[in-house]
Amino acid sequence: MHRCIETMYRVTKSLNEAVMKRILIIGIGAGNPDYVTIQAVNALNEVDVFFVMDKGAAKQKLIALRREICRRFIKGNDYRFAEATSPERERNVADYRGSVEDLNDDKQAVFERLISDEMADGECGAFLTWGDPALYDSTIRIVDSIIRKGGHEIEYEVIPGITSVQALAAQHKIPLNRIGGSIQITTGRLIAEGFPDNVDTVVVMLDAENAYKRFADQDIDIYWGAYVGTPDEILISGKVRDVMGDIERVRAEARDANGWIMDTYLMRRNRSVTDR
Amino acid sequence: MHRCIETMYRVTKSLNEAVMKRILIIGIGAGNPDYVTIQAVNALNEVDVFFVMDKGAAKQKLIALRREICRRFIKGNDYRFAEATSPERERNVADYRGSVEDLNDDKQAVFERLISDEMADGECGAFLTWGDPALYDSTIRIVDSIIRKGGHEIEYEVIPGITSVQALAAQHKIPLNRIGGSIQITTGRLIAEGFPDNVDTVVVMLDAENAYKRFADQDIDIYWGAYVGTPDEILISGKVRDVMGDIERVRAEARDANGWIMDTYLMRRNRSVTDR
Repeated sequence: MHRCIETMYRVTKSLNEAVMKRILIIGIGAGNPDYVTIQAVNALNEVDVFFVMDKGAAKQKLIALRREICRRFIKGNDYRFAEATSPERERNVADYRGSVEDLNDDKQAVFERLISDEMADGECGAFLTWGDPALYDSTIRIVDSIIRKGGHEIEYEVIPGITSVQALAAQHKIPLNRIGGSIQITTGRLIAEGFPDNVDTVVVMLDAENAYKRFADQDIDIYWGAYVGTPDEILISGKVRDVMGDIERVRAEARDANGWIMDTYLMRRNRSVTDR
Repeated sequence: MHRCIETMYRVTKSLNEAVMKRILIIGIGAGNPDYVTIQAVNALNEVDVFFVMDKGAAKQKLIALRREICRRFIKGNDYRFAEATSPERERNVADYRGSVEDLNDDKQAVFERLISDEMADGECGAFLTWGDPALYDSTIRIVDSIIRKGGHEIEYEVIPGITSVQALAAQHKIPLNRIGGSIQITTGRLIAEGFPDNVDTVVVMLDAENAYKRFADQDIDIYWGAYVGTPDEILISGKVRDVMGDIERVRAEARDANGWIMDTYLMRRNRSVTDR
């Protein structure tokens, strides 16, 4: 009897596996293909179809890097790509959060179509996300929302990846936190409102407006990096007041030369000379 | 003439390489051996000597995991381990920061001895750090301090690794940040002073005192994990007030059973029902 139940369980399980679609959200790290983890490499090798959704000026370069990662780390070539045009966020609207939510609704429709039309039951599909899927990326939120909505037999997993925050710290060879201290990871939009008073270290992502310049009158060090971990890497560090002109100029030149930029920076408020 | 300078440069460079000691500070990720990156695997394969410095109850398990990572990812066995007793921080002192600084001075003396005595000029030595070398780890700070002090010909590199913060988010399948929002990474000691008012997400590391319990009267979700990414992984999530008893009990039981615990948690303040 026990055996019979076990057999039934196995049959049900394999039927489920045949019906279920499996989605992997794989963090591929921030730029350097060697940032992928062994866990990500193993995951890449299980994938039947990669969903590719990039946008804007960086598109071709980023798609090429994804394909390079697949070519380099997948044994054989038993996989395919399904490309979709990524919806774009409406720019220059007052309600940033609302515009991202609208964008995510549009993306969700695209993701649902990809999952419905571009993969068969029992197959494994993957989204490759820059950095880590948990940091300033909406893929987890969208896939979760599709499952909550119902109507699809999907299971999914998240595979972490090296973020640009970590790449930045590694290349500058600095700790993120002071001893026993907190760090805040924030956006250009939020840091423009002021340096948070309860931390002495902030990492700023997604700053298109050179928000660091407003801290020229304070004793703050900045560690800035663009295309970190790639052959195009640029690093600049120093007191904000001393290097902000260089950063702004180099940043504009690099963006013009490459057609896009990915940059991040850490700012640390000085309390005493011996601190770092 | 140009050729002559080039030859001289090459000779000087190879003399330098023969004299210099090269130190790699390699993040090996938080628990799961498969969290190591390809960059870390390549780095592991360049190492002549691994410096092993662990402490306390977790010592044997953590040393075993390091050796397992070396065995699994290094081709051949042309490497050795140099073990040292890690100095311990003085516990229960009022000045936490000062006690860590004292500890780091002691550690620096041990590191210097290892670098002086346990590796030859031209060799490559490595420290393997849990998670990422930039987050709540002192190795970068100590190696940098040895170099600033002078007297050693050392060059060093930092290789990022998956942190327990990322492992936690991946296993709970949650984004770290709300849309457009900031996150704060902090310690048990600091979160015990209160929830920061300028963020709605905090990730707490190094909390030995169950500091989350003080938030039972607020509408806060907690995502807790111990030994995340390993076969011993335990995950608990829910409203702080609903699950804090479970977390405290499970945490104590697991620590007793294993002799040590590594846990992390994320807390998110709720603003509206649709937020996550």
